[in-house]
Amino acid sequence: MNTPLILITNDDGIQAAGIQALTRAVAAIGDIYVVAPSGARSGAACAITATMPVTYREIPCHPDYPAQVHLFECSGTPVDCVKLAWDNILPRTPDLLLSGINHGDNASISVHYSGTMGAVFEGCMKDIPSIGLSLYLQRGQRYEEHPVSADTLAAITRLCQHVIERGLPQDVCLNINFPVAETFRGWQVCRQARGRWTAEWASATNPHGLKAYWLTGQFNDLEPEATDTDFAALRAGYASIVPVTIDMTAHSVLQQINELTD
Amino acid sequence: MNTPLILITNDDGIQAAGIQALTRAVAAIGDIYVVAPSGARSGAACAITATMPVTYREIPCHPDYPAQVHLFECSGTPVDCVKLAWDNILPRTPDLLLSGINHGDNASISVHYSGTMGAVFEGCMKDIPSIGLSLYLQRGQRYEEHPVSADTLAAITRLCQHVIERGLPQDVCLNINFPVAETFRGWQVCRQARGRWTAEWASATNPHGLKAYWLTGQFNDLEPEATDTDFAALRAGYASIVPVTIDMTAHSVLQQINELTD
Repeated sequence: MNTPLILITNDDGIQAAGIQALTRAVAAIGDIYVVAPSGARSGAACAITATMPVTYREIPCHPDYPAQVHLFECSGTPVDCVKLAWDNILPRTPDLLLSGINHGDNASISVHYSGTMGAVFEGCMKDIPSIGLSLYLQRGQRYEEHPVSADTLAAITRLCQHVIERGLPQDVCLNINFPVAETFRGWQVCRQARGRWTAEWASATNPHGLKAYWLTGQFNDLEPEATDTDFAALRAGYASIVPVTIDMTAHSVLQQINELTD
Repeated sequence: MNTPLILITNDDGIQAAGIQALTRAVAAIGDIYVVAPSGARSGAACAITATMPVTYREIPCHPDYPAQVHLFECSGTPVDCVKLAWDNILPRTPDLLLSGINHGDNASISVHYSGTMGAVFEGCMKDIPSIGLSLYLQRGQRYEEHPVSADTLAAITRLCQHVIERGLPQDVCLNINFPVAETFRGWQVCRQARGRWTAEWASATNPHGLKAYWLTGQFNDLEPEATDTDFAALRAGYASIVPVTIDMTAHSVLQQINELTD
């Protein structure tokens, strides 16, 4: 068997500590191509750059990446990175796509806004086994001060080896979130919690006298008593794994919706 | 019962013919608030503006909108529009959110890239009955030359009335696509087709000698023989309705994924 080809991206950009830690964690188990945004693309979701051209360039060497890694930075979104890698950069079909480690969680409904997970969905649409990884930092916590622990990184390496060997079900990818913790307590496979963001805007008058709004917000877990959700796993100190499908059809209500068309 | 409150947005911007036609189609059945991007945001998906401030302004009158409509344009993404409307603009909880009519389809996996549907997901996360509407134009076709027909608009009005009266299931919204057609043939409730975009980049050397890439691509329906998908409905001349869930959990494979964590 050839050495596995692993494509790595993120939405925090190539300089982020999370993607560098992730790259080091899997550098020994594959040929690594990192194709990541040139800077922060937080909240990019599955956005594509539809109206502007995108550029990318190879970075021959970088002090924070292992020497054997093929490293590229791209002007576009995380999804653009995967599409560019697929069509123009990778020498063959990758055996695994990793996105992250995001500086901040992507649990519950945040899966929809996440550029980290956008790249993962794009990989899944291309039939690449694809995994997003995110760290659940509290507001004000920085990744650099609460990095993912060494044994957590070792658990990531093992999980990646299993996914390379066994693959993932068709149209399914993984949304993984880690709690801030000194040691790795274990995995919990779970479902996406129901949640709601509220109080989402802070405003200020800008220097031109115009009121301007910054996104902020308070996340509310709508199922705080549930034990089978991603947030329940995180609260209990476990790493959550939500298998996510790119088929968004609500199959169970097809008949019910049919009645609306009378 | 109060007059229903209807929030309308899109990803083509407030000047687009599609949102103007949609607004006229429902102006008689509700109090209408249009809060839409100031220009094109195609491919914005669920992107939020995370690093920059967002602004909006009311437009007191506009020749292409009915006089009684409350009209706002926003510098942000479609999701930003819904969040701003919710927190800062609307006088009460809306009874219906409409997004579109998009100039181009959002069937199959394009649901993931769609700014039109991004706004719909945001509405659904806020428990607003939410519907995205898109017109399946072939490459080179323009909405203005192939507008949605008058009887299609009448069917939209009827469907909106039903949804206002009966609501939608929890965490479910609708992704509707219309074929280009002289008359309305009917609705088909269906599932999202499996599909794949290929050959996604066109390149050219820019004036600075740098190779630049524009997104393009060829869509391939991976289930051309299926009769229960959105593309099958469109090919047969029907308007497709896919009920879409914001719970992306692949519930049927939870146990299978558990085996990866040994």
